[in-house]
Amino acid sequence: MKGELLCIPCTVRTALDIAVKATEDKELQSKLVYETMKWLVETPDVLNETPAMLHTHVQRLAEKITGATDPFKDLKKASNEIALRVVPVLEKKCVQLKFADAFRLAVLGTICGNAIDFEVEEHRFSMDELESSLLLCLNGDLVIDDTVKLNEALSKSKKVVYLLDNAGEIVFDKFFMRIITSHFSVNVYAAVKNGPILNDTTMEDAEQVRLEEVAEVITTGNDHIGVNLDESSEDFREHLRTADLIIAKGQGNYESLTEVEHLFPKPIAYILKAKCSLVADKLGIPRNGNVVKIIS
Amino acid sequence: MKGELLCIPCTVRTALDIAVKATEDKELQSKLVYETMKWLVETPDVLNETPAMLHTHVQRLAEKITGATDPFKDLKKASNEIALRVVPVLEKKCVQLKFADAFRLAVLGTICGNAIDFEVEEHRFSMDELESSLLLCLNGDLVIDDTVKLNEALSKSKKVVYLLDNAGEIVFDKFFMRIITSHFSVNVYAAVKNGPILNDTTMEDAEQVRLEEVAEVITTGNDHIGVNLDESSEDFREHLRTADLIIAKGQGNYESLTEVEHLFPKPIAYILKAKCSLVADKLGIPRNGNVVKIIS
Repeated sequence: MKGELLCIPCTVRTALDIAVKATEDKELQSKLVYETMKWLVETPDVLNETPAMLHTHVQRLAEKITGATDPFKDLKKASNEIALRVVPVLEKKCVQLKFADAFRLAVLGTICGNAIDFEVEEHRFSMDELESSLLLCLNGDLVIDDTVKLNEALSKSKKVVYLLDNAGEIVFDKFFMRIITSHFSVNVYAAVKNGPILNDTTMEDAEQVRLEEVAEVITTGNDHIGVNLDESSEDFREHLRTADLIIAKGQGNYESLTEVEHLFPKPIAYILKAKCSLVADKLGIPRNGNVVKIIS
Repeated sequence: MKGELLCIPCTVRTALDIAVKATEDKELQSKLVYETMKWLVETPDVLNETPAMLHTHVQRLAEKITGATDPFKDLKKASNEIALRVVPVLEKKCVQLKFADAFRLAVLGTICGNAIDFEVEEHRFSMDELESSLLLCLNGDLVIDDTVKLNEALSKSKKVVYLLDNAGEIVFDKFFMRIITSHFSVNVYAAVKNGPILNDTTMEDAEQVRLEEVAEVITTGNDHIGVNLDESSEDFREHLRTADLIIAKGQGNYESLTEVEHLFPKPIAYILKAKCSLVADKLGIPRNGNVVKIIS
């Protein structure tokens, strides 16, 4: 998926978001926002890039300007902790359901895990509120619901590559992987980023939530949002080639993998909430719609 | 109130908002967004201006680039119509209250009139939903509540200048002015913009909602967001000088009038919802707080 004009204000806003997390120095914050705008203005055809690439560029610029290598570190850690405390709400509901329903609810849970706001400031934190927003989200619909097809694809697969998205959310992904591995004879390879980029999951997060209990944890070989094959390790590319099914979580993976999916002639399941109208339009759904969509 | 770094992404986003309303030509839309960024990058000390000035500049740039003089025209008309249909909900509640409570609810109503979303697309429009969001908003608090002081100031005034904010919202302002004029011996001069700027109220809107029934409608003499004395008519400046009380609605008036309030040694009542964190910080309240604050 290429960028569109909407990505321009979004990228500038991301620059500010990163800036205030990366440094308290107002001048450096300002420098990052202005350098981002200059780059956008001076780079011809910048919107031929994916939105994932635009935001990746800004974080790399932030590191150059501020020296901060992992501005979302504390946020990621807190997100994982909070998610670990609320995921039992989902587990309890799933235990009471038959498999197909539990499967559907668990996959919806991975979308809710991304959607409920783990960026809650400490002093406003309320477990009750988080629990009730989770329950509300779990009562939501899948606007595109290919869970039956996903079920079928899993029943025909031996090797699944699961492209992770954010910290916090991975706790819900882990639960979904447990449902998958308890029912299907598959090996799940869960891919984290090889270095910090925004609040994307890294090896540190995987260790914090003990992801290795349900999957073999691999990395993309780079610190790019979504999938960037040019910057990937040969090891990661080989995993994508030899997988029977790829599960891609979140907008970043959707934006970037759709550009190269023709290279992987196998089922790809995109699981996400369409938070931005560009992604929603591409999928032909209203904004904020929940999606489980299989390409095969 | 001067701008801060937060105003940069906000101004770029505003450029896109105006662009898509001003033209369907993608190239012109893009030109406006890019020219806005260039202007922000190339203008030294642009953040010494008020946010109101930044957004005004973008709309003027939009007119130069796209030729559109009033991109929010249809939206303003629809906002007025919708507001005229929901304001009876507020009127009915106020009739049952004694004066001080009705006064407080009517002033809160003018804030709710700004906050409830009149930008609803036609096909999603539901009167029930609008009515219930209005009722929900009317149950809200005033985080800063100087309504008693405002009452006192009105009882000592003969001439009130009421600086209007947006279309739609003015229907609620009109109801509040009716409460004021039915109880106090004051003449209200309601100031609209002298030309289109975003969805700010113009003479056309005032006529549509028959504002002249409760106030003498005047203009600021310009099409600048908020108050810009350099561009104002002498007539408008004279009204400000001779008023006993100024009521300033919304963020735009707050942002700009706070810069020149020392020139008007009289009570000024700021009535607004602090939608942006910059305004909220300035007022020392949480974002989205409702405010009736008197400076005297």
